[in-house]
Amino acid sequence: MLDTKQEKKITPEIKKQLVSIVGEKWYLDSPNELYAYSYDATPIFQSMPEAVIMPANTQEVSALLKIANEHRIPIIPRGSGTNLAASTIPVCGGIVLNMNRFNQIYEIDQKNLTVTVGPGVVTADLHKAVEAVGLFYPPDPGSMRISTVGGNLAQCAGGMRGLKYGVTKDYVMGLEYVLPSGEVLRCGGKNVKDVAGYDMTRLLVGSEGTLAVITEITLKLLPLPETKRTLVAYFTNLVDAARTVEKVIASKIIPATMEFLDQGTMKVVDDFAKLGLPLDMKSMLLIEQDGPEDLVVRDIGKIAEIAREQGAAQVQVAQTMEEGAKLLAARRAALSALSRLKPTTILEDATVPRSRLAEIVEDIERIAEKYQVQICTFGHAGDGNLHPTCLTDERNREEIRRVEQAFEEIFQAALRLGGTITGEHGVGMAKMNYLHLKVGDGGIELMKRIKEAFDPNNIMNPGKLFTNSQRRRLVVKQ
Amino acid sequence: MLDTKQEKKITPEIKKQLVSIVGEKWYLDSPNELYAYSYDATPIFQSMPEAVIMPANTQEVSALLKIANEHRIPIIPRGSGTNLAASTIPVCGGIVLNMNRFNQIYEIDQKNLTVTVGPGVVTADLHKAVEAVGLFYPPDPGSMRISTVGGNLAQCAGGMRGLKYGVTKDYVMGLEYVLPSGEVLRCGGKNVKDVAGYDMTRLLVGSEGTLAVITEITLKLLPLPETKRTLVAYFTNLVDAARTVEKVIASKIIPATMEFLDQGTMKVVDDFAKLGLPLDMKSMLLIEQDGPEDLVVRDIGKIAEIAREQGAAQVQVAQTMEEGAKLLAARRAALSALSRLKPTTILEDATVPRSRLAEIVEDIERIAEKYQVQICTFGHAGDGNLHPTCLTDERNREEIRRVEQAFEEIFQAALRLGGTITGEHGVGMAKMNYLHLKVGDGGIELMKRIKEAFDPNNIMNPGKLFTNSQRRRLVVKQ
Repeated sequence: MLDTKQEKKITPEIKKQLVSIVGEKWYLDSPNELYAYSYDATPIFQSMPEAVIMPANTQEVSALLKIANEHRIPIIPRGSGTNLAASTIPVCGGIVLNMNRFNQIYEIDQKNLTVTVGPGVVTADLHKAVEAVGLFYPPDPGSMRISTVGGNLAQCAGGMRGLKYGVTKDYVMGLEYVLPSGEVLRCGGKNVKDVAGYDMTRLLVGSEGTLAVITEITLKLLPLPETKRTLVAYFTNLVDAARTVEKVIASKIIPATMEFLDQGTMKVVDDFAKLGLPLDMKSMLLIEQDGPEDLVVRDIGKIAEIAREQGAAQVQVAQTMEEGAKLLAARRAALSALSRLKPTTILEDATVPRSRLAEIVEDIERIAEKYQVQICTFGHAGDGNLHPTCLTDERNREEIRRVEQAFEEIFQAALRLGGTITGEHGVGMAKMNYLHLKVGDGGIELMKRIKEAFDPNNIMNPGKLFTNSQRRRLVVKQ
Repeated sequence: MLDTKQEKKITPEIKKQLVSIVGEKWYLDSPNELYAYSYDATPIFQSMPEAVIMPANTQEVSALLKIANEHRIPIIPRGSGTNLAASTIPVCGGIVLNMNRFNQIYEIDQKNLTVTVGPGVVTADLHKAVEAVGLFYPPDPGSMRISTVGGNLAQCAGGMRGLKYGVTKDYVMGLEYVLPSGEVLRCGGKNVKDVAGYDMTRLLVGSEGTLAVITEITLKLLPLPETKRTLVAYFTNLVDAARTVEKVIASKIIPATMEFLDQGTMKVVDDFAKLGLPLDMKSMLLIEQDGPEDLVVRDIGKIAEIAREQGAAQVQVAQTMEEGAKLLAARRAALSALSRLKPTTILEDATVPRSRLAEIVEDIERIAEKYQVQICTFGHAGDGNLHPTCLTDERNREEIRRVEQAFEEIFQAALRLGGTITGEHGVGMAKMNYLHLKVGDGGIELMKRIKEAFDPNNIMNPGKLFTNSQRRRLVVKQ
């Protein structure tokens, strides 16, 4: 059941003003439409907006924000809602600002290696467009076939190539954005070097829609690597896999991708994708290197050698790029595969410095055992970003409580190892009770003051990142 | 002559408190000592501090800031003062906080490819230490033999490898910092992925000491490239050199370094370093590629071909790494060489998207001619970051006025081409009259509000980045 006790703020008069900006067609407020925007890809969280508005351009966004700011109406910018941190739940009601009409690729600049897009462009479409001219946009979040570039920026999305290529923030060069006041600003541009004032670009990336609405994005591109090759290694325990990751890096090889799957995930993925994985193994690594042919062959050869030295029971090199792509597609399907098993799938995002991988994997196993919850672990081993995933049922309140306790202990373990509470998903509502563990109460106070500098009336995605005055447990609306 | 009319704020009582924190030895306020800290590497600007304090650790910084904050005493954090934006001039008096005692490399973490240092470590010492274990810290600002890592962060220093490797901000993973209130905070860490709240790390980098004092720095490292090779190409005009840069990038080769020198700079550098350059040429490019041997050979071969196709009169490949290093050292000496010629050398930092290189070089020539000032241009062609350098004499007020007009027109030209007013030097006092041209008045207002969130009493390096209420021309204190 939804919480319907939100104070309504959009009077018929205000609605008339808002409609006059975007037109009837792009102002949605039927119960069905509102319901569709009451949740995102995060399980459990849900709350109804008052309206969903789909602006066509920056001027419309500016006009809408002015009105919302005047009347203190919450604005929740949203792309495809694939985030896993409940960052786009309209928890204080208000307006969901659907940015999907900003779906154009304005320019691929082959001289400066940049691409300029609207925030509504789908990530995979961007990949396809730039790869068609031999260029490369590395960030590849799990949801890339559905997610939008604007959403990727809001969350600072990562993906499988973080180790070698970094994450979304490493590719954002310039932005146009709208403040709650309606003011339209620009920061950065196409310049590789630019130190004119504070780095607003990087501050807006990962701010989860709490500071401003991003309306145009200029991204850095790289030349598309000539080729790539994939290797898979199976291990009879967890530690050998983790040590292989360490040794590869220590030998000064930085692969494009190093994915880890534990036995539980292997079983589920194999059942889903029929790969014939050796399911008696305790873990596997999926490693891809890209670059010039000879270098890739050399690196993959060395990696195979290291994996064997570290006790891999089997090491296989994919014979073709297609075979490699198939293996990685199976890994990408892990969440879908896992989510078939139980009504509720909670995908977490604990992250550690990569040298602590073995320890965190063991901690997760121990904690799952302690709380008697089912957790499969997979993720981006190369950058220490793991996704312990709990298969549960949100209707079972007692089990959900144990799940929450288990995750809290997992976050504590990650932090003890020098890690963080979220590597690539964000804080949103899902992690806001844990943020103080990473950045401290002083860090939170400072962030709140920065938010106030952008958004004095707190209309931008309120109820995210920061808890209210008192620290509290997750409130599950149902 | 120095401005000595500053209001004194350090009473004998306050001095006693400050001395009790660091000890007599590290509190300097003799006239000679104060004079030594009244200027930095930027020509023309000068102003006296009230005291120079050299804290030993974070606790001392915290205690000092608390007192300064209470009594509204300006704090100017400073490394070696090699910045070229007048960012460390104590223009409002107060305390220069010399961070040179924070000069330790705490840890080189070969498993996580990070290094953790105090802000007082000299950049070149950091290079040497990490290269000794086969690792690589790419940012290499011109002043790297003197500059400190803390200063590099404050200015977001660049260097010759920006095109392929990015700049300082791309390598900062974690910080410890002290707010004006004395509160000690941490952000980031060793995690490749970390999205727990706003990206404070990137906000502090490039903030020129106006937000907080950085007391510990964790940097990302890369494997040291196996080898490198250098190529030099000479051109009978400017446009062919610029076009060569464009074509190299368009052919999907990203060299580590692509340096441009115009004829004026070539002459001066040749006279300084006795290289036997062909001085009838109008411009030269110095291009270095690094990486695995075969790849480097292949890339350098292709680049030579492209340079010839674009009309290079001569193309030479250095036969050894030493020969290449000698050429690059000569380029690094450009500023020193130029500064021998006239009493005052103003090194500017106009930057454009690299595809506009030919246009900005031509604009600079035209503008120098128009104002009858002597400008030599060199810089990082690969990332569009040029250093038009004016040879002048600050005692000649009339000429300095023309120089200022010329530079203002150069900035306007850069902005018209989609560029920026400063690529890697920063704003400080030198560019604060131009910042609004790049980020707009709205952008400046927002940045001021962010500063207030960190520093409500405006004690952190006041008088930098932002002009006071009224826009004004440079005030040269003399």
